[in-house]
Amino acid sequence: MTKTDMRTAILEAKKAKGMTWEALAGAVGISPEFLCSACLGMNSLSAANAESCAEALGLGPDVASALTEFPKKTWDQTIPTDPLIYRFYEIVGVYGETLKEVIHEQFGDGIMSAIDFSMDVSKQEDPKGDRVVVTLNGKFLPYKSW
Amino acid sequence: MTKTDMRTAILEAKKAKGMTWEALAGAVGISPEFLCSACLGMNSLSAANAESCAEALGLGPDVASALTEFPKKTWDQTIPTDPLIYRFYEIVGVYGETLKEVIHEQFGDGIMSAIDFSMDVSKQEDPKGDRVVVTLNGKFLPYKSW
Amino acid sequence: MTKTDMRTAILEAKKAKGMTWEALAGAVGISPEFLCSACLGMNSLSAANAESCAEALGLGPDVASALTEFPKKTWDQTIPTDPLIYRFYEIVGVYGETLKEVIHEQFGDGIMSAIDFSMDVSKQEDPKGDRVVVTLNGKFLPYKSW
Amino acid sequence: MTKTDMRTAILEAKKAKGMTWEALAGAVGISPEFLCSACLGMNSLSAANAESCAEALGLGPDVASALTEFPKKTWDQTIPTDPLIYRFYEIVGVYGETLKEVIHEQFGDGIMSAIDFSMDVSKQEDPKGDRVVVTLNGKFLPYKSW
Amino acid sequence: MTKTDMRTAILEAKKAKGMTWEALAGAVGISPEFLCSACLGMNSLSAANAESCAEALGLGPDVASALTEFPKKTWDQTIPTDPLIYRFYEIVGVYGETLKEVIHEQFGDGIMSAIDFSMDVSKQEDPKGDRVVVTLNGKFLPYKSW
Amino acid sequence: MTKTDMRTAILEAKKAKGMTWEALAGAVGISPEFLCSACLGMNSLSAANAESCAEALGLGPDVASALTEFPKKTWDQTIPTDPLIYRFYEIVGVYGETLKEVIHEQFGDGIMSAIDFSMDVSKQEDPKGDRVVVTLNGKFLPYKSW
Amino acid sequence: MTKTDMRTAILEAKKAKGMTWEALAGAVGISPEFLCSACLGMNSLSAANAESCAEALGLGPDVASALTEFPKKTWDQTIPTDPLIYRFYEIVGVYGETLKEVIHEQFGDGIMSAIDFSMDVSKQEDPKGDRVVVTLNGKFLPYKSW
Amino acid sequence: MTKTDMRTAILEAKKAKGMTWEALAGAVGISPEFLCSACLGMNSLSAANAESCAEALGLGPDVASALTEFPKKTWDQTIPTDPLIYRFYEIVGVYGETLKEVIHEQFGDGIMSAIDFSMDVSKQEDPKGDRVVVTLNGKFLPYKSW
Amino acid sequence: MTKTDMRTAILEAKKAKGMTWEALAGAVGISPEFLCSACLGMNSLSAANAESCAEALGLGPDVASALTEFPKKTWDQTIPTDPLIYRFYEIVGVYGETLKEVIHEQFGDGIMSAIDFSMDVSKQEDPKGDRVVVTLNGKFLPYKSW
Amino acid sequence: MTKTDMRTAILEAKKAKGMTWEALAGAVGISPEFLCSACLGMNSLSAANAESCAEALGLGPDVASALTEFPKKTWDQTIPTDPLIYRFYEIVGVYGETLKEVIHEQFGDGIMSAIDFSMDVSKQEDPKGDRVVVTLNGKFLPYKSW
Repeated sequence: MTKTDMRTAILEAKKAKGMTWEALAGAVGISPEFLCSACLGMNSLSAANAESCAEALGLGPDVASALTEFPKKTWDQTIPTDPLIYRFYEIVGVYGETLKEVIHEQFGDGIMSAIDFSMDVSKQEDPKGDRVVVTLNGKFLPYKSW
Repeated sequence: MTKTDMRTAILEAKKAKGMTWEALAGAVGISPEFLCSACLGMNSLSAANAESCAEALGLGPDVASALTEFPKKTWDQTIPTDPLIYRFYEIVGVYGETLKEVIHEQFGDGIMSAIDFSMDVSKQEDPKGDRVVVTLNGKFLPYKSW
Repeated sequence: MTKTDMRTAILEAKKAKGMTWEALAGAVGISPEFLCSACLGMNSLSAANAESCAEALGLGPDVASALTEFPKKTWDQTIPTDPLIYRFYEIVGVYGETLKEVIHEQFGDGIMSAIDFSMDVSKQEDPKGDRVVVTLNGKFLPYKSW
Repeated sequence: MTKTDMRTAILEAKKAKGMTWEALAGAVGISPEFLCSACLGMNSLSAANAESCAEALGLGPDVASALTEFPKKTWDQTIPTDPLIYRFYEIVGVYGETLKEVIHEQFGDGIMSAIDFSMDVSKQEDPKGDRVVVTLNGKFLPYKSW
Repeated sequence: MTKTDMRTAILEAKKAKGMTWEALAGAVGISPEFLCSACLGMNSLSAANAESCAEALGLGPDVASALTEFPKKTWDQTIPTDPLIYRFYEIVGVYGETLKEVIHEQFGDGIMSAIDFSMDVSKQEDPKGDRVVVTLNGKFLPYKSW
Repeated sequence: MTKTDMRTAILEAKKAKGMTWEALAGAVGISPEFLCSACLGMNSLSAANAESCAEALGLGPDVASALTEFPKKTWDQTIPTDPLIYRFYEIVGVYGETLKEVIHEQFGDGIMSAIDFSMDVSKQEDPKGDRVVVTLNGKFLPYKSW
Repeated sequence: MTKTDMRTAILEAKKAKGMTWEALAGAVGISPEFLCSACLGMNSLSAANAESCAEALGLGPDVASALTEFPKKTWDQTIPTDPLIYRFYEIVGVYGETLKEVIHEQFGDGIMSAIDFSMDVSKQEDPKGDRVVVTLNGKFLPYKSW
Repeated sequence: MTKTDMRTAILEAKKAKGMTWEALAGAVGISPEFLCSACLGMNSLSAANAESCAEALGLGPDVASALTEFPKKTWDQTIPTDPLIYRFYEIVGVYGETLKEVIHEQFGDGIMSAIDFSMDVSKQEDPKGDRVVVTLNGKFLPYKSW
Repeated sequence: MTKTDMRTAILEAKKAKGMTWEALAGAVGISPEFLCSACLGMNSLSAANAESCAEALGLGPDVASALTEFPKKTWDQTIPTDPLIYRFYEIVGVYGETLKEVIHEQFGDGIMSAIDFSMDVSKQEDPKGDRVVVTLNGKFLPYKSW
Repeated sequence: MTKTDMRTAILEAKKAKGMTWEALAGAVGISPEFLCSACLGMNSLSAANAESCAEALGLGPDVASALTEFPKKTWDQTIPTDPLIYRFYEIVGVYGETLKEVIHEQFGDGIMSAIDFSMDVSKQEDPKGDRVVVTLNGKFLPYKSW
């Protein structure tokens, strides 16, 4: 079973069961953000988590097996067009150099890892309109000379 | 004075004075992230803030005036090459659909604003290596039918 | 049912029934522009509107269900080639900076939302040739400092 | 004097005089949108209008002459990055096919001219946040067979 | 029937019958250039012409119906690779500014319409090698101020 | 003197003298289209023609010499943005395959040369709006097997 | 039968029969380079040659017929990735201006035709490693003024 | 002295002296093609050849020194626009797969080197029009397994 | 059997048998890196090696035959998106000029062959985190003049 | 002093002194590869190393200071054109998936760091032609779930 077929099977089962990522993640015991990324084919799960996930969705071992495979991470659109995703691209464009300046000031020459990394999305209620709060947390990796 | 000349003047003065964005932001009374973005030419400051900023750097009213102008936000690289900035681009590529799924689940059909927006960078100390924590906070904007 | 299949089903039913967007929109009780965009897969309808729409076209609940799903908005052509659509792209190229200047003059630093947004197309009769009038109406979103 | 030098001279004089496009357009007797586009180098003015414009800004006949030259309309960014301009690009992407459907329904096979064309920007006050209203008005051009 | 299927059906029938565009156009009563472009899916025919065309090819009403639909004009290659087509692209690149200069000199600021437009291809016999003569005929559209 | 400097010198002299391409071409004894393309740097003139051209404009032998050099034909924009030039690009996109079909039908497998080539622009008066007539005339080059 | 199907049929038959392009070309009576390009779909054969070619491969008249059709020459990769083909692209990049200088010096302003053209590949034995010798032979086409 | 300045100096001296590449190459004792590529900045010369070249042009040791530096080979246009150079690009596109087939048939799996390589341009006189003959000669490099 | 089908068959058989590239390479008697590249369709094997490989996987002679065919090496993504592969692209971007400087210093003007080439991947254990060691070994090819 | 000016100053001084990267690196006490990358503007040096480097080249403290600044790593060419650098790009294209397969097999799901990284270039003498050996050494970073 390819990652693409796995993804379709999961999204259909999830819709049929009316489950949320939140609920599915609770059943597996990991965060909804990571679980969702694995179900979309962008990360892999441990065998135990993959099994729990497939089970919660009423899907078979082929889905569980596909969830454990190491994904090839590819995307089609160099510049994303969907407005929700584009706004994050725009933030990288507008604030990329700011991030560089501020991170260098706090940490020195290096980068924030996108591998040793976690991401959290939450809602901040606000009478003027609720707010989306996205927290990116990555290990600082200093450049080394040799 | 163009935004480009303003930026050069500020970066040189900042280096000559040995000031940090943190310190400069303290003098102006806004966050270092926003101040830095304005000094790099990606946002505008109020007249009062612009004046404080120029003063703290020992720069004249032409710099203050340039800081108040509404910027044209442009960037050269469709895909950024600097590793620090690229990692954020990669996060958008790998987790863009995850963000869409999770935000839609929590908020419904709409987007996180990149305009009614703030961003915070902080350090989380960790014995296995300090971590960069970037918090993005944007108003949720629901799609409307008409 | 995917959005793509939904779109094909709707366009075929619409053609078979000889219905216009105008008439279909009347049956649903929303504007033809928004209805059309939802039927093409670029917006989502409320459950009630989706049901009315499917019913007016003699289509089943799978189409109605697909109409309520939150779409991923993608387009293939970075620069559209169809002359009707290209002319709008050209207007953005020729008048983009003019829009920026005039909107900033009237509203200050900020943007016109493309989310809290509506669009109307109407015909203005003219003996020298009728005219297309497209009205774009979006909430002004001011930049905020933090 | 090139269009680029003309543009710089006009923007500097306009800023020094503290004039708005509105006021400048009033002095010339045309709309602010068209005047602004000509001053940015994207349209040409009649000799009379060009002279009035230069005069109102305290600029010489070389500026007036440059304003009357037929411009070469070019833009650098295939996909604009400035958020204000990008939102219009996004509207073309999201609603381009909708515009095609609705215009064809009202007018038949043809396009809206971007040459025999005018554009108006106005403010619609709204307690929930003022709105930008952009009206595009172009002659319908039917395809002809031969 | 999609435009793509229509195109395939027409090209196959045309080959099977050994008809030329010239002959087919004669049967329909329009020019071979316009007829060919409609059969390739780049223009639409009136109902009467579409019927004559389908009939001449021994094809059914679904083809005739598809010929009357308003096409979405798209092409895949930003820069065409086929040498015959590339040479026309090259002419636009080499002589584009010349066309602009000479048309502006004769007509003033404006463009040649590609919508109110016709095109003719003919052979000019020449002992040193026959010549292809392509005549483009489009309405001049002057820019208007407002 | 580079072709770029030559071009600037010619355009300035032409403007100062108020000469048209028509008049300049008359003085040189070649067509305005070819002369214009040479003055813009896209073709070379014979020594005699170059001298006549420079003389008619009151320019020196360095301009004449630059006019005789073999040009490197380059253009910046893969897809032209100026509306006048874009319309010709659009014609290649919309009618490229039609040109291929019709030329092959009349001539066999081969191309229209863009080198052994001439181009004429003329005005066709029309009460409904004057028309631009562009005639492209190129030698047919048949493919050869070997 | 499309050119794509023809190509697949020919490559399979050629492999099954263990024939070389050399042998196949001998049977047809043309060069292996031209024959190969026609079999790959980039050139057309005369009816007689097409028939010989199909016959030598044990293929039917539909293949012969497809071989005589005028091809649309397209390629997918703007910059080829296969190392053998890329090296030729690299030669054009590194030596393109050298070719221009040297051809202009020998022939004057004009080009080498890629239509009235032949190409030969041969092996030059060499103790230090055999060498590939590719000979390109095209008619010189001088630019003409008009 | 940069390669760019060296190139300009050489082209100016060559023009002023009215020397051909042929003559210059004769003075240096290498082929005109290689010499020309080195003078354009795409190859390096030995110290002795560089000195002879500078001397023949009446240029100083800084030019000779620049000629000996190892060049960074870059070109601006992914797809060349100049017709003479484009035709070679087109040949790679049309005949790239043919070259691959025929070279593999003669030599096995491997490539023609573009480094251990030479190129010759010569004129073949022909009553129907002289022909350009370009000979590419590169060492065959077989792929190796390990 | 195409290379694509061969690749799928091999990856499925390898997974079903639970074989590593290491083990498969041992059975064939070549390195895992080369074997893997051939199984993915980027290199060809000798007939003997191809047979051993197919046999070890329990696959038939069509797979073995496909493994011996000379591949067309293509890749879809100009800039790879998968983080593991992107990091190597980034290394080429960041250190490309360094490689050029250091190789030229050690070897003179020339390149490292990617054809007469081998690659080894190994693990270097390290208490602070194991390290990946990739060794690229290619013949130096000096530029030659002629 | 910008990184660009620093780079020019260093390359000129290095050439004037006839120093190699090897010798300069010896004077500084780091590897030639890292030193070279810092001098080209792609890495930063510690204050002590920067001082030693400037001193060894006879350059002043502005160069030393520029060497310590955190660089913005950018490159112009998405696909490098210089043959030496292109070959490394080609290796990433041809062997990228092989690297992914083999590294995953040895290490699990993760990547080789390009930040916690070193690179060595050495010469392997060989009677059939010396070989370039490039060793890339990066920390393995496993993906983590959260």
